[in-house]
Amino acid sequence: MAPETQQFDLIVLGGGPGGYVCAIRASQLGLKTALVEKRATIGGTCVNVGCIPSKALLDSSHRYHDLMEGLTEHGIEVEKPRLNLKAMMDRKTGIVKELTDGLDFLMKKNKITVLRGTGSFIGQKDGQVQIQVEGQNGSAVAQAGKVVIATGSEVIPLPGLEVDGEHIITSDHAIALQKVPEHLVIIGGGVIGLELGSVWKRLGARVTVIELLPGILMGLDRQMRELALRLFKQQGLEFLFEHKVVGAENKKGQVEIKIVDKDDKEAAPIIADKLLVAVGRRPFTDKLNLESVGVKLTERGRVAVDGHSLQTSNPLIYAIGDVIDGPMLAHKAEEEGVKIAEDLAGKSGHVNYNAVPFVVYSWPEIAWVGKGEDELKAAGIPYNSGKFLFRPNGRAKAMGAGDGQVKILAHKETDELLGIAIVGPGASELIAEAVIAIEFGAAAEDIARSFHAHPTLAEVMKEAALAVDRRALHA
Amino acid sequence: MAPETQQFDLIVLGGGPGGYVCAIRASQLGLKTALVEKRATIGGTCVNVGCIPSKALLDSSHRYHDLMEGLTEHGIEVEKPRLNLKAMMDRKTGIVKELTDGLDFLMKKNKITVLRGTGSFIGQKDGQVQIQVEGQNGSAVAQAGKVVIATGSEVIPLPGLEVDGEHIITSDHAIALQKVPEHLVIIGGGVIGLELGSVWKRLGARVTVIELLPGILMGLDRQMRELALRLFKQQGLEFLFEHKVVGAENKKGQVEIKIVDKDDKEAAPIIADKLLVAVGRRPFTDKLNLESVGVKLTERGRVAVDGHSLQTSNPLIYAIGDVIDGPMLAHKAEEEGVKIAEDLAGKSGHVNYNAVPFVVYSWPEIAWVGKGEDELKAAGIPYNSGKFLFRPNGRAKAMGAGDGQVKILAHKETDELLGIAIVGPGASELIAEAVIAIEFGAAAEDIARSFHAHPTLAEVMKEAALAVDRRALHA
Repeated sequence: MAPETQQFDLIVLGGGPGGYVCAIRASQLGLKTALVEKRATIGGTCVNVGCIPSKALLDSSHRYHDLMEGLTEHGIEVEKPRLNLKAMMDRKTGIVKELTDGLDFLMKKNKITVLRGTGSFIGQKDGQVQIQVEGQNGSAVAQAGKVVIATGSEVIPLPGLEVDGEHIITSDHAIALQKVPEHLVIIGGGVIGLELGSVWKRLGARVTVIELLPGILMGLDRQMRELALRLFKQQGLEFLFEHKVVGAENKKGQVEIKIVDKDDKEAAPIIADKLLVAVGRRPFTDKLNLESVGVKLTERGRVAVDGHSLQTSNPLIYAIGDVIDGPMLAHKAEEEGVKIAEDLAGKSGHVNYNAVPFVVYSWPEIAWVGKGEDELKAAGIPYNSGKFLFRPNGRAKAMGAGDGQVKILAHKETDELLGIAIVGPGASELIAEAVIAIEFGAAAEDIARSFHAHPTLAEVMKEAALAVDRRALHA
Repeated sequence: MAPETQQFDLIVLGGGPGGYVCAIRASQLGLKTALVEKRATIGGTCVNVGCIPSKALLDSSHRYHDLMEGLTEHGIEVEKPRLNLKAMMDRKTGIVKELTDGLDFLMKKNKITVLRGTGSFIGQKDGQVQIQVEGQNGSAVAQAGKVVIATGSEVIPLPGLEVDGEHIITSDHAIALQKVPEHLVIIGGGVIGLELGSVWKRLGARVTVIELLPGILMGLDRQMRELALRLFKQQGLEFLFEHKVVGAENKKGQVEIKIVDKDDKEAAPIIADKLLVAVGRRPFTDKLNLESVGVKLTERGRVAVDGHSLQTSNPLIYAIGDVIDGPMLAHKAEEEGVKIAEDLAGKSGHVNYNAVPFVVYSWPEIAWVGKGEDELKAAGIPYNSGKFLFRPNGRAKAMGAGDGQVKILAHKETDELLGIAIVGPGASELIAEAVIAIEFGAAAEDIARSFHAHPTLAEVMKEAALAVDRRALHA
């Protein structure tokens, strides 16, 4: 007996933040919705092995590091702490479980059918798209008038480096090490490399970041990323720029890393305990059988969508998140998920790609929205720049966290905010004001003239806005 | 020989945040400016004995408390810390000094003449207002075409309680105790009482708050202040509402506090080490000799000003900050100072009193802007309410800080933001987004549709905004 085909209004492929949020919003708006997820838990890379576990470890490792540095200045006398890595990992695992349990609850509450297994397209008939779901308990077929591809991304492997999970690892392993490595080498000076490098550095590892490009965080304003680099170096993180890892060999429980410089000349190899490959992520479209429904990829392997509707080359099928163009960020996927759900329900969804914030949860934190100076110059957009340090800020002093600054770029003629970058304490939360200001097409003057509670770190934002017009009050 | 009268365009009386910021802005705009300050240091109550030292102690005491609670959950094994209160106080003093030194530098850099001493009005002649400054090194006379009164406020004493600095103290003393009291009784459940109560509770004192009114933080939305109270009680702070302290007597190194209930019936007295009087502050106009220049006070003793221009009953004299009506907040004074400087320089200054944020630096923090439900009901304004807890938020979980929520009130018909209140981690910085949104006359929908980086605490703000329209995603 052939299995019955389950019928839905919408099937979402992939239960990461983009997919599950899309499913929730669609269900809120009355669509009968299914979510296909191959993992045992909802939440995708972000909740299971990405944003959330890394933030849990960043929080714990930051506390550990503070204690190792000592709190005598605060009048707190305490012995050096002992690290119980297993307990730290257990806490992280517990937090992930709380969140995935919560997501299971949300799926039930919103009456979303979760189809556990790997989804792939079968084909299309009478305006219905058929999906096959291969799960542990056999296979099922479902169909819907609309499908959203939200299958996310996976780690980009490096040629010549076979990830063994032991010596050569990805971020999936780096959030679950059972021992602090003596020497951790990270390939890639992007967000993931810097966050996980920070975790293990704080816990006592020597950390070396090898990067093909001449700097870290190349999406961030140049001067601000140089500031961030200086601060990372002060913390003892080591960097090797314009070098490439071309191979690695296990040797007596360690890994020998072969490196060439930008002229392809061999450099001295590095011996490490762990080699973390963090060169980026690529869209995950394996086994989707996109050809069966005529969904096309871009040259770079992402699912091609119309920028406005997020429709693929098949008008019944949409795509969101890491699998399409744009920054691979949970909140970008979420907004796209909401937009499509609303469009499908006859409302007018919208995503403002000019107001996407980027955050690095290092210490100090780094966050930005909009453009940097080089981008503005390249685009021929005239601008004024205002900067203000955290050092003289009263709250920062009270926290003992004076490193960093806020930088605001505004249009030279209209004063419209073009880019805001923060390297400093609380950057991840301070960026919220900048995002809403950009959303409103605000001028730097608008931030400069708005109340900012005293004493808060947010006053640095206000001073930077005043500095755009050369009238900072406390500089 | 009579001392020469120094001539200025503007004299500012009082070097607190309102006064010195006014002086800086006036100087930026080309006015020859003098600042009269009776303290040895610029910065007023806020920098010297208020916001800043309390925040330094709140930061240190929070760390101490975290350690006392233990970090085993984080995988950090550490002995119980020993408190070195002197070092904690020294750090606080050092931070205040860094800031006041910085302000001295700012005065010089901005070419502001600081007249050290107590200022008072002499009179007015030919469009010039004369000021006498009595300092340690004798007296001086200065005059200017415009004067700003920024003399701030002082602690309100209670009848029958003589502050001796030993057993009966004010906030000035409570930020400088040399020993953790066994039992600290605080009269007043406002911001100052709660912040200083938090400091000493964390450091090991028993803390009892006696309040005349039936609750704490009466300016905050009722439901949110009840939530805050519940959290304070969980921390072990004790509260005695609708009771009044009518006397106190030193007894064998302790203080016996006489109390009556709301019907003036005597209640059991309380014995404590320290009794902190924190019932509020009153405008400070002593010795100003306001009559000599015809500056009038309101019935409640504040300097009367025109709400738009901040001009007093003498058109040459303005007043700002705690000495006039409105909330006694540093940032309110600062904005008023900037406004007047700009008005005097021929620009158009402006203060938006609808967008003044309030912050309590307790744990969790408390912050709000705009109105609460009771106020809206009383004003007959129809509203929708949206709430979201910190508990399910990923960042809050990673931080181990799930207590609290965000509440948003928006107009029932227009969806315009009317009030935003936060009890929760990071509230002091999260409020910045709410303030700028209110500044723009934003709707709850605007916050709901804007990017909020994942994973951040600010996502709770977004969810609360979605909840106004009953479409929170994670609830």
